[in-house]
Parts: sequence; structure tokens; C-alpha cells
Amino acid sequence: MNAPVFPESARRVIPAGFLDALREQFKDRCSTGHSVREHHGRDESPYPPMLPDAVVFATSTEEVAWVAKLCHRHSVPLIPFGVGSSLEGHLLAIQGGISLDLSGMNQLVSINPEDLTATVQAGVTRKQLNEEIRDTGLFFPIDPGADASLGGMAATRASGTNAVRYGTMRENVMNLKVVTADGRILETANRARKSSAGYDLTHIFVGSEGTLGIITEVTVRLYPQPEAISAAICNFPTLDAAVQSVIEIIQMGVPVARVEFMDSGAVKATNAYSKLTLRESPLLLFEFHGSPAGVKEQAQTVQDITHDNGGMDFEWAEHPEDRNRLWTARHNAYFAGLQLRAGARSSTTDVCVPISRLAECVSETAKELDQASFPYTIVGHVGDGNFHVLMLLDPDNQAEWEESERLNHRLVARAIEMDGTCTGEHGIGLHKMEFMLAEHGPDALELMRSLKHAFDPRNILNPGKIIPAA
Amino acid sequence: MNAPVFPESARRVIPAGFLDALREQFKDRCSTGHSVREHHGRDESPYPPMLPDAVVFATSTEEVAWVAKLCHRHSVPLIPFGVGSSLEGHLLAIQGGISLDLSGMNQLVSINPEDLTATVQAGVTRKQLNEEIRDTGLFFPIDPGADASLGGMAATRASGTNAVRYGTMRENVMNLKVVTADGRILETANRARKSSAGYDLTHIFVGSEGTLGIITEVTVRLYPQPEAISAAICNFPTLDAAVQSVIEIIQMGVPVARVEFMDSGAVKATNAYSKLTLRESPLLLFEFHGSPAGVKEQAQTVQDITHDNGGMDFEWAEHPEDRNRLWTARHNAYFAGLQLRAGARSSTTDVCVPISRLAECVSETAKELDQASFPYTIVGHVGDGNFHVLMLLDPDNQAEWEESERLNHRLVARAIEMDGTCTGEHGIGLHKMEFMLAEHGPDALELMRSLKHAFDPRNILNPGKIIPAA
Repeated sequence: MNAPVFPESARRVIPAGFLDALREQFKDRCSTGHSVREHHGRDESPYPPMLPDAVVFATSTEEVAWVAKLCHRHSVPLIPFGVGSSLEGHLLAIQGGISLDLSGMNQLVSINPEDLTATVQAGVTRKQLNEEIRDTGLFFPIDPGADASLGGMAATRASGTNAVRYGTMRENVMNLKVVTADGRILETANRARKSSAGYDLTHIFVGSEGTLGIITEVTVRLYPQPEAISAAICNFPTLDAAVQSVIEIIQMGVPVARVEFMDSGAVKATNAYSKLTLRESPLLLFEFHGSPAGVKEQAQTVQDITHDNGGMDFEWAEHPEDRNRLWTARHNAYFAGLQLRAGARSSTTDVCVPISRLAECVSETAKELDQASFPYTIVGHVGDGNFHVLMLLDPDNQAEWEESERLNHRLVARAIEMDGTCTGEHGIGLHKMEFMLAEHGPDALELMRSLKHAFDPRNILNPGKIIPAA
Repeated sequence: MNAPVFPESARRVIPAGFLDALREQFKDRCSTGHSVREHHGRDESPYPPMLPDAVVFATSTEEVAWVAKLCHRHSVPLIPFGVGSSLEGHLLAIQGGISLDLSGMNQLVSINPEDLTATVQAGVTRKQLNEEIRDTGLFFPIDPGADASLGGMAATRASGTNAVRYGTMRENVMNLKVVTADGRILETANRARKSSAGYDLTHIFVGSEGTLGIITEVTVRLYPQPEAISAAICNFPTLDAAVQSVIEIIQMGVPVARVEFMDSGAVKATNAYSKLTLRESPLLLFEFHGSPAGVKEQAQTVQDITHDNGGMDFEWAEHPEDRNRLWTARHNAYFAGLQLRAGARSSTTDVCVPISRLAECVSETAKELDQASFPYTIVGHVGDGNFHVLMLLDPDNQAEWEESERLNHRLVARAIEMDGTCTGEHGIGLHKMEFMLAEHGPDALELMRSLKHAFDPRNILNPGKIIPAA
């Protein structure tokens, strides 16, 4: 499976003495070994790696600033690296330069339970954060598939299954410590829950994928661990019936914490993988957070609505073991899907549309996919209108890769026509740059370009990503 | 009461023929009459008006773009105007130029009940929106004191009493139609509930106070009208006890829709103004949204917590008339406060701090204010850590104005030291520019300056606001 190849000629020349200066400063925390560079020149995308010239392992904001100053002086590309779990080629060193590994910056800076906030270094992962704050009675809800770093999640504007209730990184980052392209250190905001004091630097950096500055600390909102949690599962005769139920649930104001969709293919794969016997039809999986009475009331309302829409086999899982069984199955849907085809590699789409258009968008997409020469499954964060098609490709078959790309093109065009987006939570990286013009139009893209130029005039920060050349 | 005077010499020269071109295009929707200019050269701040050279009444995005192109070509200042309810001098034409009145752009563009979104022209006010969508079963929660326009609320990053549950304009604007400084028309996003597609233009314009672009349409989130609403009121022996209750309520995850604080002075003023007999001690006023059982449960939890903190006279108002009586009293707190001193004009502060520091911040502030030569009251959106001191000044007494400014300086310094902000919801305008450096630091301010320059290279959009000169 071949992704577009980036020419070696795009690599910038590293000036003489540059790597020596890095080595002198960082000693054995500066590596030019092939395997370390290869590990840092790739992510979870299907692209073959593009290696940086060196990898630096930073342990403090001041070290990050030192590297940025050096790179800025010599116009050398600088790519921040967390755990390498991004999906769209974000981390490939297509112009060479330095990969700056922040995974060693994994300390909690401060936890403020009264304010429901935590400030952590960029390399802290979401699971680590939740383990370290468990005793406070609080939790951090954002859960992309991978155990990503908080810095990477902020940079990608990530979300996951809880976004319908708790929002995405956009809604949950309160403040960032950032190193600018020329090595200055600043904070984008403070810990006030709201502010009208000037331009919103926080949201400029959230989702900027390392192209505007390097995030070294993240202050996020925390939430009280719910007193009670319950789950429910419900099958539907059609996708439309499932989505219509979700629309009604949200319109009723039911504060559902999670509502996930699986198509019949995904259910089938999950049954096989997780040894379950779920009915192999479109399915919704719910989670409710609240007081014991509250989650009962939510489940009852949801049961009524799903019943009115033809839902079947509504099952309420109040006990942790039943709930965990269902959610583990959902979390394993990706691996379950991969098992549908031996040796397959997946390409995953990520459109998000207004929920009123979701059923139509999924149906039309499924109709096209049914004609494809490879198997697929669909899972969705349907409360947000976001869904993923897992396309299971033969890694040695270039024609399948090209077919999958054509199908994704049509899917993205459909989502944009429906007033949606090419990516709900995975980001642009390299793979979705070609959709930026269609989604944003030339004038918005030009503003983004001018923002990039204002913040990074020498184009050293993760160059060649997000914004296509004019 | 004299505010700083802006020199007439700062006015830019309007080139010959410029006003003629405007008049030819807009006919009687272009006015150079003194009273119209005076109305548009002021806001609700204590500043004396600074008049624009002309006022243009726009009726479409295309007209706004036409004016922007003309102003850009001739480097003439352009100041968007909604209903004129801003509080910090946002609208004063300190460099002259054109005030662009958008109040005629008051049409709903589209309502999408299934998606819980509404798209409106910038001149639609929050009350108008809520009246027009009432039949859908949805509502728009953001409620600054004034019946502000949605465009102005977005530009100011406004909020109000519901923010603790529903967020501010930052969390509730999904998309904007914007005219750039040079007259291009673009949309910042789309109607997908989440997206990771490139830089967050929406949040760049929210809170930019007309200095980066002119907002002509706003897409906002709507919410289901709650099935049940109830209110409660509770007195406390001390401010600390009240704030500690709020911290515990929020930590418990009680989804309180509103929680407002009034100090004993504000209660006393309200008793006199609204003919009530509330105990004249620190007070919290709550509103609960949810199912009938849900609001009962919330009220019970809140009653238990307030009782444990020494709360007295807890009163639960389930009936609309009782609820309205209490909330009308709160909404009239501003006018009630003004009555404390005949002929007074108010100066209102707006700091916001992490809630863990709120009691300390309010106490220290009250201690200083008790020594002041004028009366004051304090009200607060305490769930957010935001409070307002209403300082009642003799408009003819310059010494009082200066004293109030000194007190606000000390208050803002205290808030910033506590990791808070000089303004929770009113914005910077002219009045708070002097705090920008202390709050953000030189490097963040420099980034804001570079953003302004990138988006408005000729500095025509509401020039001289938000960012102090370097």
C-alpha cells in the first residue's frame, strides 16, 4: 500500500555544526541513530516513514525553547512528538529537521480539585492523568482510541466517545504553556473559567498540530466521577431508526454521556472477536452518568424513545461487569474489524456532519462501500454526527488503496456538501490537506496562511502540514 | 466624571470624495448628522462620546464587504455597531472613521431544530432569537444584562447568569460569517458539532471586538427548554460559607443552571427596590433545569450542602411566579444598586478568578471598598468565579472616579495574581487595555499584535482597541 511519496529534495539542508550544537547540549538525549529516527518519522497513518535528521528528548519547557531558538536561527524544521499515535501523517519529517520528543515531560504540575482543573506537562497521557487523579474523585473524560499524550491531544483537537456530554479538547483545554517558533515561552490564558480579555490564543493552538507553537503544558477541566454509571444497548432494524432515536434523545435534553453506533458489519466482527451474541443489525450503545435515580430516569427515557423508533432487545446494564463487557467490545471494534480480513491494514475515515444529515450520509456511504472490492465496518460517535469507516485493505494491493482513497474523496465531498467537515477528531496532517480548500474556501484558507506566517515566519514548525501551498 | 481624553489629533484624515462615495451607495442609509454620529460614538461606558465621521446602516453581508473594501482602500477606520450596549468604550471612534450599524441585519437565516442550531444575522438580539424559536421547544441560554445583538455578544465573548451550565459565547458559537478587513467574505467553520480541520478561525473572531473582522452572521447552539425549572434561595452568615457551598455543589456534579451571589449591600438595595424582605446577609440564588424528579433531587442536594455550610432560610421556589419574583429581583440588582445613591453613575468591575480563590478575592476587595468614599454592592456569577462590584459614583466628582479606578486597579492585580482575568465577560475595549500586559505578558501580547497585523495590515478595524501599542 503506497502513500504519496514526498521527494527527498524537499529536505532542508542542515547547516554544518547544527547537530554538534544539539549533541553538546543534550548529550545522549540527542540521537541520530536510524531506529530512533525511524520511530519518530512515522505515526499510525499508512504512510511510510520520513525520517528527521535527529531526535531530541526534552525534559523541560526551557529545553524546548532552547531547541526552538536554535532551529529558528538556522531555519531547521522542528516537529513536536508525543506518543506517535496520530493518524494522518502529522509526524513525518517531510522536510527533515528535528523531532522533539516530549514523552519525558510526563509530570503533573498541579491538581486543583476545588477548581476542577489539572495542569500537566505535555507528555502526560490521558490514562496516566486519570490514574494519578483517581483519589480526588475527579476524572478527565476525553478518550481517543490511543493512550495519547495531553499535548498531542490538544494539538490535534482530539475527542472520543465522551464528547457528546463533555466536549472535545476544544472545550476542555483552559490554558496552554507554549514555546513560540523563535523560542519565547508564554501562557495562552489562565485558570479563570471564562474571560473576555483579548484574542483567544488557547484556541489558536488547540488543533494547530505543532505548526504554530510547541505545547509544553496543558491545563484541562476535570469532572466529578459520576455517582452512578449505567449502560444500555439497543438494536434497530435500520440505520435511520437508530439515528432518529439519537436525535430525539438529544432534543429531549437527556444528558447521555456516550452514544456509539455500530453497523451490522461491526457488530458481526465484534461478536466474533469478543465472543458475544449481539443481534447483527445496526446497534446503539449508551452510557449514562448521574445520580442513581438520574441514570435510571435517563435509561427509561432512552428506552421509550428507542422503542417508539422500532428499537429491539433494549438491555440495561447496571452492573459494572456487564457494562465493561459491552464497552470493552466497543473499544475493541477496531481490532475486531481488522480480523474480518487476514493480514489486512485499515484506512479509517473521519467525517462529521450535522446530526440531521447523519443517517443520509452513512446510508449513501454504505451503499457505495457495498460495491467496493474490500470489506468495511462503520462505527460512529453519533451524538456528535461523527463516524468512522474502517476500510480493510490488502497492504500489497495498490489498486485497493486507490479505490479506498476515491471512496473517501466522495465521502468527504458528501460531508462538506452537508455542512460538515472532513475530520471530526483525527486532524489534517498530510492526508487531508487536499480537502482544506473545499472545506474552508480560498479566503478562509488565506487567513490561516497569514496566521501561520505571523506565528512562524520561517516556516520551521512542522512545515508542510495542514495548509496546502497557495 | 472624566474618562481619559483621546486627542482629536488621533483622528485619521478622511480623503476627499470618500463620504460622497458612501452616500452615493447607501443614500439615506449613510448619515453624517450629529445626533446619529453621537449615538454611534458611545456605548454604556462612562466615556464621553468620540464621534465617527459617518454612520452607515448595512442590510447585507455584501454591503458590509463593500464598505470594508472602500475603507481598506483609503485606510479609513471601520467600527461595527450592534445595539451599543458594550461597557468598556468598545465603540468610541477614537480615530474617527465609519460606524457600521448592523442592527438592520436582524433576520433569522435558518433554524435547525434537529441539530440544535440557529443561524442568524449579526443584528438579531438574544431576546428576539428566543421569541422566534419558542415554538421549537428550544432556547438560547446566553443572557448578558442588555438585550445585546448576537454579533456583538460573539465579538465580546459575552456570557451571563447561565454560563455555569451552558457556557459562554466561546462555547456556543459554532460558525461565523465574517467580512475581512479587505472586504472578503468567509465562513469560519460549518455546522458539524466538532472538527479538527485546521486553525480555529471561529474562536479567533469570538472576543475580537471588531478588530479582526466584521461578524455578519452567527451560528449558535440551542438547548431543549427544560421540562422543569425550579429556583432556590439561601442566606449565609459569611461570604466564605456561600462560596464554599458553591464549590461543593459543583464538585458533586450538580448540574445547576444558575448560581448567583449577592452581598448584603446588594440584598438591602434589592429589598428596597423590589419590595422584598430577604435577610440582609450574603445570599445565593439558584436555578435548576431538568426533569421534575431531577430538579427536586438537585434542590435537595443543594439544600443539604448549604445547610452543612451554615446556610439559613433555604427556600425552594417551584412555582413560576415565585421563581420569577426572585430572578426579577436579581436582574434588577443593577438598578436597585443605583438607587442606593441619588444621581449616582456606576462604574462596574468584572474580574474572574478560579473558584478556589473567589472568597478570598471578594473578601479582600470588600475590605478595601469599605474604606472607600462611595457606596458599592457586589453581585457575582459565582459558579464561574466571576463577580461585579458596582461602585456608585458622583458623576461630578473627579476624585471619586480616580478613587474607583485605583480600587479597580488593585482588584485586577489581585485577580491576575490569583491566576484570573481582568474581565470575565465585558471585554477590553478601551478601559481595560492597560491590564493586557500584566495579564498576558509581553510575549503573548506580541503574538496578539502579530495576529492583528496579519488580519488587518492597515489597522482599519476598530483601531486603538484591545491591544496597547508596543
